[in-house]
Amino acid sequence: MQRKLAAELFGTFWLVLGGCGSAVLAAGFPVTGIGFVGVALAFGLTVLTMAFAVGGISGGHFNPAVSLGLAVAGRFSWRDLVPYWVAQVVGGTLAAAVLYGIASGAPDFVAGGFAANGYGDRSPGHYGLAAAAVCEVVMTAFFLLIILGATSAEAPAGFAPIAIGLGLTIIHLVSIPVTNTSVNPARSTAVAFFAQTNALGQLWLFWAAPLLGGVIGGVLWKFFFAARGEAAE
Amino acid sequence: MQRKLAAELFGTFWLVLGGCGSAVLAAGFPVTGIGFVGVALAFGLTVLTMAFAVGGISGGHFNPAVSLGLAVAGRFSWRDLVPYWVAQVVGGTLAAAVLYGIASGAPDFVAGGFAANGYGDRSPGHYGLAAAAVCEVVMTAFFLLIILGATSAEAPAGFAPIAIGLGLTIIHLVSIPVTNTSVNPARSTAVAFFAQTNALGQLWLFWAAPLLGGVIGGVLWKFFFAARGEAAE
Amino acid sequence: MQRKLAAELFGTFWLVLGGCGSAVLAAGFPVTGIGFVGVALAFGLTVLTMAFAVGGISGGHFNPAVSLGLAVAGRFSWRDLVPYWVAQVVGGTLAAAVLYGIASGAPDFVAGGFAANGYGDRSPGHYGLAAAAVCEVVMTAFFLLIILGATSAEAPAGFAPIAIGLGLTIIHLVSIPVTNTSVNPARSTAVAFFAQTNALGQLWLFWAAPLLGGVIGGVLWKFFFAARGEAAE
Amino acid sequence: MQRKLAAELFGTFWLVLGGCGSAVLAAGFPVTGIGFVGVALAFGLTVLTMAFAVGGISGGHFNPAVSLGLAVAGRFSWRDLVPYWVAQVVGGTLAAAVLYGIASGAPDFVAGGFAANGYGDRSPGHYGLAAAAVCEVVMTAFFLLIILGATSAEAPAGFAPIAIGLGLTIIHLVSIPVTNTSVNPARSTAVAFFAQTNALGQLWLFWAAPLLGGVIGGVLWKFFFAARGEAAE
Repeated sequence: MQRKLAAELFGTFWLVLGGCGSAVLAAGFPVTGIGFVGVALAFGLTVLTMAFAVGGISGGHFNPAVSLGLAVAGRFSWRDLVPYWVAQVVGGTLAAAVLYGIASGAPDFVAGGFAANGYGDRSPGHYGLAAAAVCEVVMTAFFLLIILGATSAEAPAGFAPIAIGLGLTIIHLVSIPVTNTSVNPARSTAVAFFAQTNALGQLWLFWAAPLLGGVIGGVLWKFFFAARGEAAE
Repeated sequence: MQRKLAAELFGTFWLVLGGCGSAVLAAGFPVTGIGFVGVALAFGLTVLTMAFAVGGISGGHFNPAVSLGLAVAGRFSWRDLVPYWVAQVVGGTLAAAVLYGIASGAPDFVAGGFAANGYGDRSPGHYGLAAAAVCEVVMTAFFLLIILGATSAEAPAGFAPIAIGLGLTIIHLVSIPVTNTSVNPARSTAVAFFAQTNALGQLWLFWAAPLLGGVIGGVLWKFFFAARGEAAE
Repeated sequence: MQRKLAAELFGTFWLVLGGCGSAVLAAGFPVTGIGFVGVALAFGLTVLTMAFAVGGISGGHFNPAVSLGLAVAGRFSWRDLVPYWVAQVVGGTLAAAVLYGIASGAPDFVAGGFAANGYGDRSPGHYGLAAAAVCEVVMTAFFLLIILGATSAEAPAGFAPIAIGLGLTIIHLVSIPVTNTSVNPARSTAVAFFAQTNALGQLWLFWAAPLLGGVIGGVLWKFFFAARGEAAE
Repeated sequence: MQRKLAAELFGTFWLVLGGCGSAVLAAGFPVTGIGFVGVALAFGLTVLTMAFAVGGISGGHFNPAVSLGLAVAGRFSWRDLVPYWVAQVVGGTLAAAVLYGIASGAPDFVAGGFAANGYGDRSPGHYGLAAAAVCEVVMTAFFLLIILGATSAEAPAGFAPIAIGLGLTIIHLVSIPVTNTSVNPARSTAVAFFAQTNALGQLWLFWAAPLLGGVIGGVLWKFFFAARGEAAE
């Protein structure tokens, strides 16, 4: 169990450092900045890389909504849920602290939104609460379908980290303008502590919506796709 | 069969939500927008991810032209063609509705073209009907060659979703300026219902050309590449 | 042999249509154009996709310099070299003709350089002949090292198309400003017929340098890396 | 051993030619330049491609910090460390020389920073020494965790070059603005010889920080993740 929690902690650390780090440090760099395409790649590739590295140890969730959805689908032990969540939030928050330290080394640093998620005035494109909620729920549900499908016995073995990581890239390609893309409460919590904006006041949505989406994804999988006897896996 | 149709419905939903969603929400975002590169990646990765997730269930077509081309090549049952088409169009249209709901949550939302396909005045680069038709036919035919080749017994097992998804990415990298890229009648139909432009009036081309291209791809494969006895597969 | 030549013809067709097509149609599209990153991805992914699709049939060269380098390294029959070259040049030229047809459907079409390769005034960054020659030779030599290594018995099976395709992407990421990137005489020849500039007058370099690079790559592999007995493969 | 050193020499040559080459030649090309996204892809893909090509021969380090971290983790022989370092620095420096030759073929060439790494005034975003050091240490440590994990017995076989290469891409997506991204003393040394800026005067940091990060990564792996008996591998 210690190995598993370490894997989740380091994996979520990397997700926040790589994903939010690319957004904070490089997205808006003048002329040659990476833009949302680069941020979308960075988020997806953090999951791809750490799922290859430590996915064999912990399953490679790095995300409370993923852990919950897998539990709903019968692929993850309910007993391990809270320890995983703690490891994910701690890992992400440590990464946000390191990122804050690095970012503050620039002469013109201002934390600003610090890659936090938001709706309304805190949304990059000023999308309202309803749009933000729908977007996060639907995106997380499909993220779970991809995860559950790519790790099922009917999928080719070994490729799951590619499918899952690039699934997170798609999600960001679509939804950064809407909510800055969460689908991951640990990621949202980690950076909210450091944002100068009122990110903590909107944080409830980025727990509620991804967790609901995770449950829906798990339920959809069980209802439509689970092979007989899979729950016993 | 129910699992297969659910797989096609959800897969095409994801293709439209991810591909057209990236185009509608993120392509033209000021300064850090994802541009056509991001849209091309998003379309390709939707197919890559869902083909890993549910390709083992339904074959992972998510596209009426693909289903038709595979039937022509002897790799898909003609009897299943219409049910697959219905699932694809329904899934895509549901995704377009959800996307419309999210997009309308922005304060300055206008549906405009809503990622619809078009030629002439509706083409991003104002390409005429003949160029649009040739482009869609040729692109779809090669898409089928990639699909048929990557899933043949002579190709390494397991990698087909990577080849097929990234094949769709190439197609978009080339042809977004020409027709906004269809090669998929379900994708074209789904968003045409929501466009403010007269996309429905041009929709015929984005059934005719991809389907013709799919047939040509299937015929070319059978004529040039099919191994002996493959049709009996 | 007919299947092999068809595979090379279609594969080189796709390389030119996808790679040069992305450059001609989409690279410079206003605001959301794909730029050199998109062109580099398109070229690489054409090889990745068709190597998965028909690489098991012909080896998936799609490039006279690759065929030559493989022959030098003892991995390809000298007897098949000229037929392969013919199939590659014919396939590429047919693709350039189709691309010309599509491109001319835009109201403001001018062929211009038409993605042709060049040095001096024909180089995107006005690089001189020596720099262009060195760049093409070195890039092609490394392309061969990647190909020979990724398809050797010491590399993991099945992944070669990924390594080779993305190798071509790197080459373009570096060298488009220098020569518009050839490393492939068939690709250079195909579009030179359609360029309004004097691309045919510089075409000699884009046969000489890639072929020399291919030979060097093959010799380097044999000298430094070939496992004992590999030449007999 | 000669094959191994040749593999490291050619691999590091490719890393510097492809990665630094993309930065010097293509990153800032007007309008269609590849930006930091293209550079991040190029660096990552050089490692991906050569790790597939010659990773089976030498392990595919191409980086003194990686060799050190692997030795710390018990996966690489201490006796081979210095020969590997020499091969890496020589290979990288030869590549920088070739790159200098190509780059100087442009009419308006100035070497400038020549993709060298730096902090303070030499940092792209003018990040200070402390931020630069922390960034390089943390990034290299995670690079080692990815490498050690993806090549462990618990990871799916064959995929390691994908995870490792794309891990280097993430690192660049985040940290180019901070230090121009080293995590590799051979890469830093190679181009420092050719920069017009005082890159050699800051080179100590780009040995110290990556090597320290490599050690930390190796130690973290051993402490948290190494399976029993793995050190004996």
